[in-house]
Amino acid sequence: MILELQSPLDMHLHVRDAQMLRLVAPLSADSFAGAVIMPNLVPPVTSVDSVEAYRSRIMQAVGDNEHFKPYMTAFFKNYTESELLALKDHVFGLKLYPAGATTNSEGGVKGMDEAESTIRLMEEMGIPLLVHGESHGFVMDREEEFLSVYRHLAQKYPKLTISMEHITTASAVGLLDEFENLVATVTLQHLFITLDDVAGGMLKPHLFCKPIAKRPEDREALLEAALKAHPKLMFGSDSAPHPIHAKESCGCAAGVFTAPLALPKLAELFAKHDCIANLQAFVSDNACKIYGLTPPKTSVKLEDKPMSIPSSYEGFGQKVIPMDAGETISWSII
Amino acid sequence: MILELQSPLDMHLHVRDAQMLRLVAPLSADSFAGAVIMPNLVPPVTSVDSVEAYRSRIMQAVGDNEHFKPYMTAFFKNYTESELLALKDHVFGLKLYPAGATTNSEGGVKGMDEAESTIRLMEEMGIPLLVHGESHGFVMDREEEFLSVYRHLAQKYPKLTISMEHITTASAVGLLDEFENLVATVTLQHLFITLDDVAGGMLKPHLFCKPIAKRPEDREALLEAALKAHPKLMFGSDSAPHPIHAKESCGCAAGVFTAPLALPKLAELFAKHDCIANLQAFVSDNACKIYGLTPPKTSVKLEDKPMSIPSSYEGFGQKVIPMDAGETISWSII
Repeated sequence: MILELQSPLDMHLHVRDAQMLRLVAPLSADSFAGAVIMPNLVPPVTSVDSVEAYRSRIMQAVGDNEHFKPYMTAFFKNYTESELLALKDHVFGLKLYPAGATTNSEGGVKGMDEAESTIRLMEEMGIPLLVHGESHGFVMDREEEFLSVYRHLAQKYPKLTISMEHITTASAVGLLDEFENLVATVTLQHLFITLDDVAGGMLKPHLFCKPIAKRPEDREALLEAALKAHPKLMFGSDSAPHPIHAKESCGCAAGVFTAPLALPKLAELFAKHDCIANLQAFVSDNACKIYGLTPPKTSVKLEDKPMSIPSSYEGFGQKVIPMDAGETISWSII
Repeated sequence: MILELQSPLDMHLHVRDAQMLRLVAPLSADSFAGAVIMPNLVPPVTSVDSVEAYRSRIMQAVGDNEHFKPYMTAFFKNYTESELLALKDHVFGLKLYPAGATTNSEGGVKGMDEAESTIRLMEEMGIPLLVHGESHGFVMDREEEFLSVYRHLAQKYPKLTISMEHITTASAVGLLDEFENLVATVTLQHLFITLDDVAGGMLKPHLFCKPIAKRPEDREALLEAALKAHPKLMFGSDSAPHPIHAKESCGCAAGVFTAPLALPKLAELFAKHDCIANLQAFVSDNACKIYGLTPPKTSVKLEDKPMSIPSSYEGFGQKVIPMDAGETISWSII
């Protein structure tokens, strides 16, 4: 069986910078027509200049491949009206991190109150707000506790498109149907794993990410929504490479590297559940409709022939271990 | 301030075997007058001969120190009456593991039904049953799901002393007051950490253990019971050394190494909560009363002077990272 996907999009991607960027960006460009690029560099991306410089470095890393479009974001902070007006045509959206919630988010928002003047301007200018939605509470409760913030923002700013990034709970899935202006992305790993896979047997650093994988009933709800291509749910891998020494160590960084295997894994998953016809919407059409995107016209062919996931991806002095390293899956990119 | 503890006991200890045994057993003997020794070697300890051979290796490792007594256990399996009669005077109790629940437990019990003929004999012979009480369910629910087994056994075998080993939940603490013949141990780490410490920031392999650390309200309940020296709760470190390569790797083994720092950390904790007078009961008297033990008469003096926890313990070709490696605590052994 052969499946042809038109212009697949990764709506949440970390490509890092420098040598790591050179290693991982081409791996995304091999699969995807475009990707929403996270701005949590050190220092974070917060100006027209830094957005455009980062875009240039990404395009250089992918060999100026015109079939791959980076949708740039800027790191949410309190911007003035003139700063936002300047940024507006250079970014896809702003990415809001609660301070300290994940990798390189120390400069994030300390309290949501302080963020609202900028959020109001974003609504007026039609700039989407992408949110890492976690409280600072107990790790298994953080997303659930943040839902009240989404409710508040969705009600108060009805014309603002708010994306709940990398949702992990059944409650967040439920919220999609409550507010017209709330949408969401879901990662590859959260369709497959629960906390059991991270910490139920051996502890698995390469499956450790933020938000952490939750309970079986949460995974079921995410999977059900993805398989039926819920029109407000988009694929966003949150593929987040770390060098191996930052993962297999006494303090392992959060992030799962999935970009090069995401489409074959998704094809295998959707085929297994007899939902292969819905994959196009999940990995591209939903996002195009929600945001009015016109990505580069590419197509990717997948086939139900086995592929081995490499034990690592190496180059430019970097070594990254992917999810399911060394395992065989039943679909591959032709 | 100086605190003198009489004959402190570690009611749940892994000393492993061979070179690791030679490294870690003396570190326990430095602090404790005795320890209940877990039998999950490869192969597990299941006969008089293997119990006595293991006891000899332990005594050799501690330099035939007469101030340290290993309370040996055998691995629970279906024993015949004559096997149990032979074992009876050589062991402190039998340790029951559900198959696959933790390190080297593959030979454990597959279903509790099959275990009951041996459990009945244990009740008749007055052999305590020590249990790793976890179901095979979702990692955060495993202990809670196992409580029904404890209830069943406690009711059906009222003269059997059943120890819920290394309890981690408020529900297990509550169960102590429901059945006279149920007692419990609690580890060092579960008085200090929750899942947040393991996976809420960076992922911390050296704090990963089974049962996994639970929610803040669980830790509070354990701490409250320990601080008041609940008469049915005993200190059992579950100190479980693994070589560093088995912890900082792509699949980290479960176990926290705490034996050499347990008493200073407990003194610091009990002093901080103005409960220092209760520490003697928690680390020795409760266990002596519950089991009628008469450990070697030793005393350990602790003082509220800072000590640095080593970044590792090394020797005999082994390297083990302790809990809180490299940190300073405010109490030390004199």
